[in-house]
Amino acid sequence: MIYTMTLNPAIDYKIVCERFELNQLNRFKKASLHPGGKGINVSAVLNNLGVQNEAIAILGGFTGRYLLERMKKDYRLDLKPIWVEGDTRINIKMTVDHETELNHEGPRVKDDIFEHILSIIRNMKKEDLLIVSGSAPSGQRDAYQQIAQLCDDLELRFVMDTPGDLFHQFIDHQPFLMKPNLKELNDYLLMDLFELDEIIFYGRQLIFRGVKHLIISLGERGSLYLDQEKAYLAHPLEGTVISSTGAGDSMVAGFIAMYELTKDPKLAFIEAVAAASATVFSGKLATHRDIQKYQTKVVIEEL
Amino acid sequence: MIYTMTLNPAIDYKIVCERFELNQLNRFKKASLHPGGKGINVSAVLNNLGVQNEAIAILGGFTGRYLLERMKKDYRLDLKPIWVEGDTRINIKMTVDHETELNHEGPRVKDDIFEHILSIIRNMKKEDLLIVSGSAPSGQRDAYQQIAQLCDDLELRFVMDTPGDLFHQFIDHQPFLMKPNLKELNDYLLMDLFELDEIIFYGRQLIFRGVKHLIISLGERGSLYLDQEKAYLAHPLEGTVISSTGAGDSMVAGFIAMYELTKDPKLAFIEAVAAASATVFSGKLATHRDIQKYQTKVVIEEL
Repeated sequence: MIYTMTLNPAIDYKIVCERFELNQLNRFKKASLHPGGKGINVSAVLNNLGVQNEAIAILGGFTGRYLLERMKKDYRLDLKPIWVEGDTRINIKMTVDHETELNHEGPRVKDDIFEHILSIIRNMKKEDLLIVSGSAPSGQRDAYQQIAQLCDDLELRFVMDTPGDLFHQFIDHQPFLMKPNLKELNDYLLMDLFELDEIIFYGRQLIFRGVKHLIISLGERGSLYLDQEKAYLAHPLEGTVISSTGAGDSMVAGFIAMYELTKDPKLAFIEAVAAASATVFSGKLATHRDIQKYQTKVVIEEL
Repeated sequence: MIYTMTLNPAIDYKIVCERFELNQLNRFKKASLHPGGKGINVSAVLNNLGVQNEAIAILGGFTGRYLLERMKKDYRLDLKPIWVEGDTRINIKMTVDHETELNHEGPRVKDDIFEHILSIIRNMKKEDLLIVSGSAPSGQRDAYQQIAQLCDDLELRFVMDTPGDLFHQFIDHQPFLMKPNLKELNDYLLMDLFELDEIIFYGRQLIFRGVKHLIISLGERGSLYLDQEKAYLAHPLEGTVISSTGAGDSMVAGFIAMYELTKDPKLAFIEAVAAASATVFSGKLATHRDIQKYQTKVVIEEL
């Protein structure tokens, strides 16, 4: 079974203002609520691809219940909730001309809840795969370190997709897949890599440290796949970007879905790029049909 | 029966940020949700004072359900919901050093819903009192004008407490009570009144136009009551201001509660000032006990 875990999901409150003045009353007409969380997004795209999976999420309060309902309705996704006190957070994404984000840290997760999460992982089987995505919850800052350590001990394959500063918590526990963008990679390595051959050279250092599959997003230059043997560059697809929200999560879902089916990293990388593109160009999480459409258009170059 | 009507309630999402930079990612730790709306607040304080009343509110979606539940839980207030499509709006109050407000216009109220509201009013009795508070809903910009006209036709006493720019919609329909602050009064009259005798002189013009009871908030200078015969000044009470949210609504509730009991405007004005003070100094809607406490401290001067 493939499991996703979202320890700190959020509802995004997207608002569009004509003007914004600090310390004043501002009015907006356009507003929408987008329940999500990176692991939940991965599960939704896996669902769209017909891949069986279980989406575990820490939820709280009326916003948690709303998230549960909306995921069921929009993606036929039955979340497995772990309920905590407090409300699932609401983050604000305010667009005036550019986007300003206001992110809440989320409800506090107590030790007994986190222990329950570890016990769920202890019951997983060796052929399972665990994808943990998004930020660590309040009260459990070393959650990723503990989960990675446990997966390592259990020889359980895991993927962690987190804000860059958490890389150090799991990188030495042999993650199955890592998906930094170039900025995150540079921040982690304290480098300023730009040229492809440098990126491949230093990316390989991560492979030698135990990362099995590495995908590095290069923005307008496409994305790069590395493992112990191969290096592939996927050129970016042409299209109009509607929203990049969920693109990274779609990439993870695409890679995992195809890898589990074929064990072929090249095919998996193509599916990953197609899934990310389908999300970016549609402005909503990739559907199976859209992924199939973009799959045929992905151009891969072996380096 | 006393009725309150909240045509465009809101949940306030209060967040406290250490820093705020436009077009960047900002994080916040403190956040809280405050369901409310001006008419709902009036009803909650009337409830606290043991005055029977009915709180009619237009609600929508999961945020509407949340507002309903919270009012029941926090104030034993059973709202009479009128459900519309869309979600009850979430407004953002962001405090960095000062407060920045981001207000949504709220869900659209269609004509059939508004017609239903008018029919509720048509069924009210002459001894009833209707308090309509807050902003007009999207889609019904002249809601206040229509309701005031109807109340006038039915000889039904009504109070409207709205953002200043809506005064002109009801001022000629003989409202029972009006409660502008000095800025709102000045904006309405296109004047720049400051001295008490000027304020009383021009305030009386509103009385001559049909306003039965007029309370003008003067900020640090206290507040002023006017009717056809009397003018009273209430000196401000001493205390530490925690939050002025709901102070005006408490003032309306206090005035109405005591007026219905005694028909004495001076006693009603004292109760109004006590209720507003109780809210301002406690940071939550005035309780009966707090109002009683401040009642004895209000100093009224006849002018």
